[in-house]
Amino acid sequence: MILVLSSLILNGQNPEKVLSSIFGEALTDRTAYNHLEYICKNTKGRNAGSSMALKAVEYTKNALIEAGADTVWLQKTPVPSWDRGEELCRIKSSVSGSEDLSVSALGLSVGTNKEGLTSEVIEIHDFKELVAVGRQVIEGKIVFFNRPVDNSLINTFAGYGGAVNQRTSGASEAAKYGAIAVIVRSATQSLDDFPHTGVVRYEEGVNKIPAMAVSTIDAELLSKRLKADPSLKLQLVSTCKNNPDTWSYNVIGEITGTEKPNEYITVGGHLDAWDIAEGAHDDAGGCVQAIEMIRIYKKLGIKPKRSVRAVMFMNEEMTGTGGKTYAEEAKKKGEIHYTALESDRGVMSPRGFTFDAEGEKFEKLKQLSQYFIPYNIRDFDRGGGGSDIAPLKALGANQMGYIPDIQRYFDYHHSANDTFEQVNIRELQMGSAAIASLIYLIDLFDL
Amino acid sequence: MILVLSSLILNGQNPEKVLSSIFGEALTDRTAYNHLEYICKNTKGRNAGSSMALKAVEYTKNALIEAGADTVWLQKTPVPSWDRGEELCRIKSSVSGSEDLSVSALGLSVGTNKEGLTSEVIEIHDFKELVAVGRQVIEGKIVFFNRPVDNSLINTFAGYGGAVNQRTSGASEAAKYGAIAVIVRSATQSLDDFPHTGVVRYEEGVNKIPAMAVSTIDAELLSKRLKADPSLKLQLVSTCKNNPDTWSYNVIGEITGTEKPNEYITVGGHLDAWDIAEGAHDDAGGCVQAIEMIRIYKKLGIKPKRSVRAVMFMNEEMTGTGGKTYAEEAKKKGEIHYTALESDRGVMSPRGFTFDAEGEKFEKLKQLSQYFIPYNIRDFDRGGGGSDIAPLKALGANQMGYIPDIQRYFDYHHSANDTFEQVNIRELQMGSAAIASLIYLIDLFDL
Repeated sequence: MILVLSSLILNGQNPEKVLSSIFGEALTDRTAYNHLEYICKNTKGRNAGSSMALKAVEYTKNALIEAGADTVWLQKTPVPSWDRGEELCRIKSSVSGSEDLSVSALGLSVGTNKEGLTSEVIEIHDFKELVAVGRQVIEGKIVFFNRPVDNSLINTFAGYGGAVNQRTSGASEAAKYGAIAVIVRSATQSLDDFPHTGVVRYEEGVNKIPAMAVSTIDAELLSKRLKADPSLKLQLVSTCKNNPDTWSYNVIGEITGTEKPNEYITVGGHLDAWDIAEGAHDDAGGCVQAIEMIRIYKKLGIKPKRSVRAVMFMNEEMTGTGGKTYAEEAKKKGEIHYTALESDRGVMSPRGFTFDAEGEKFEKLKQLSQYFIPYNIRDFDRGGGGSDIAPLKALGANQMGYIPDIQRYFDYHHSANDTFEQVNIRELQMGSAAIASLIYLIDLFDL
Repeated sequence: MILVLSSLILNGQNPEKVLSSIFGEALTDRTAYNHLEYICKNTKGRNAGSSMALKAVEYTKNALIEAGADTVWLQKTPVPSWDRGEELCRIKSSVSGSEDLSVSALGLSVGTNKEGLTSEVIEIHDFKELVAVGRQVIEGKIVFFNRPVDNSLINTFAGYGGAVNQRTSGASEAAKYGAIAVIVRSATQSLDDFPHTGVVRYEEGVNKIPAMAVSTIDAELLSKRLKADPSLKLQLVSTCKNNPDTWSYNVIGEITGTEKPNEYITVGGHLDAWDIAEGAHDDAGGCVQAIEMIRIYKKLGIKPKRSVRAVMFMNEEMTGTGGKTYAEEAKKKGEIHYTALESDRGVMSPRGFTFDAEGEKFEKLKQLSQYFIPYNIRDFDRGGGGSDIAPLKALGANQMGYIPDIQRYFDYHHSANDTFEQVNIRELQMGSAAIASLIYLIDLFDL
């Protein structure tokens, strides 16, 4: 037993036994896995603002009802509407000839016209290099950002973080020097043929230029071709376009608390995904884990003191409006948000949780790790929650993140490689059980 | 720094920095991954005794030379020779008609004749049930062992262990009651279409009958068909056969120790694999991790005090002769075997190691875990090594096992699903680095 907590009255509950039941139920039931398959295979293309996103909304709403949630509702939220269209990136070299690269327009990017544009290319590795190379050289050209992710970093998110500004800000930074388009090496540790897309953020007042991700293998190829023929040209075509904003929904299922129904615990993932991916790890998996928590509580008769919500946030990938709307509504209604957990780092085998907490508060949370020893979930570390629940912090909600093993996450991230087949049912369900267990303990011990 | 160890003279070495270099090298180099691809794609079918096994011997011998091992040699070992041949398992039911099941003869099984055999089937779940059902019912029939792996167990090896006696001993147990053949539900947590094979052990003096694994999905199907039509018949054809024993090799690469060259540290996996699998996780991955340890030591200039060997054991899957031969030779030569580590639980993301040690010895080993915190490798537990290194225990060698995350291991195990594509380069290489690091520390601190 845990020392600090042992003095608490457990109302006859035996947390060890409850956790054992939660894991047993999760590992012997296929509902969550079947939900994941449906979302991946039948709502692919579910960018926020798409009809497929609405189909996923409808499906998960029904899944929450089937799971036995006391209340299920949709929460309207404004979302961007962006269509990919056609895309092409072709090397035209007098040395190596014509070769098509594996590319994918970045989300929210502007397109070219139908004929596209053709221009010389300059390879750049960071924004300082733009300064050094200068407008005279860059103007009128396509900038090719080719800084790889640092594979020596153990934390793949740190590796990603060290490369991703090329994708988010590269277009505007290059446009300041007169570039007419950018293509960006995919932000992944993997050497593969998949372009890994993601959002581009245009700086206000700077010329918006088309932006595309290129696969890491083709980034290596282009770099090699440029060395052999610095005057080669790239033909870029991208007919993607930004439509007027539209509406979609957060999907919310709630179990009403027995003692403190006006205090809320939020557990969520995001339902939107990049159109080129099935979005299994990012983040249908996180959504079905939240639904599974509801199903398990209802199946096992676990009755939390506080109201527990599973939330499928809409539009994490593009502008984060779902998370903002959820927090705004909560504030309007004067809801007390006790704590919130996000699962948006894939659904590989669980390693633990992060807590945005300090001092004694963190030490108490850390002690909960003792309950997870039988499940080999050992990492209770300080860290953030996730972007969808971040707006709840202003309302006082503790922030928690679910942390699976992350070595292979960026192999899938934002690419056509993020498929249902890349998820293992036991790894998914060990995560569902871990999340359901942590929330149960936090509610039980008022942590 | 570690208290107990801090008093040791490190000869100017900084273990933290050495480990950082080892992980950095492993995560930025593709040699091991390329070796794995070659072995999987070009030596598939490498049952001990096959020509493909000899091709893998040749390949890994050269890989060890390229890695820079001071000495590389082959160690001859006797091995069984077993050929699969053709196989068929067909339901013939007046209710549901004719359906072929996904089956795979068990290794070392006897076959049927070419026409096969056709008989009624009785479904059995454990050996006690054989007694209860009795010879009168079983005689002349095919026994269908259909006890599933207990998916609620967190440790997948424990789940496997609870089901696998149907595969290893089911044939002889059923034959005692007059069964003419057995088909056995695959020992996996996964519900899939792959038959998962493995060795059958015939009890001496008991009639040897054909034995086949059936996929879990088809085990469920057959059980359903039997409920609808208990008198359905199964047609079994299996032309597998046991040939006279032949010869193959262990492959050994050594770095000669600087201070205690006559004390040996053995690190290994097994090179043979089931013929229906590429044998990526089981266990080409373990082999290339051992080769990679040699490559990394040579590349970084790490010079162990003791002689360190990478050993690709032959014939783990069928009769374990490779491990026995290795220990016998060591005994003959009077070698001092200090410690041995086996990697044969797949090459998923590393969780830690097991040590067959007790008391103070184990506590000292456990303290090494502090060096692995930056790599999120936290599990230093008591437990065994592996079957190839087990014979070294009698020579005094400490036994250690490499423990990756094991939730999905039995999805691959002994099936056509065990392919190169199921291995992630970072997960493989995090393991290579973990093993190379542990061996470095154990040698350095004389543990």
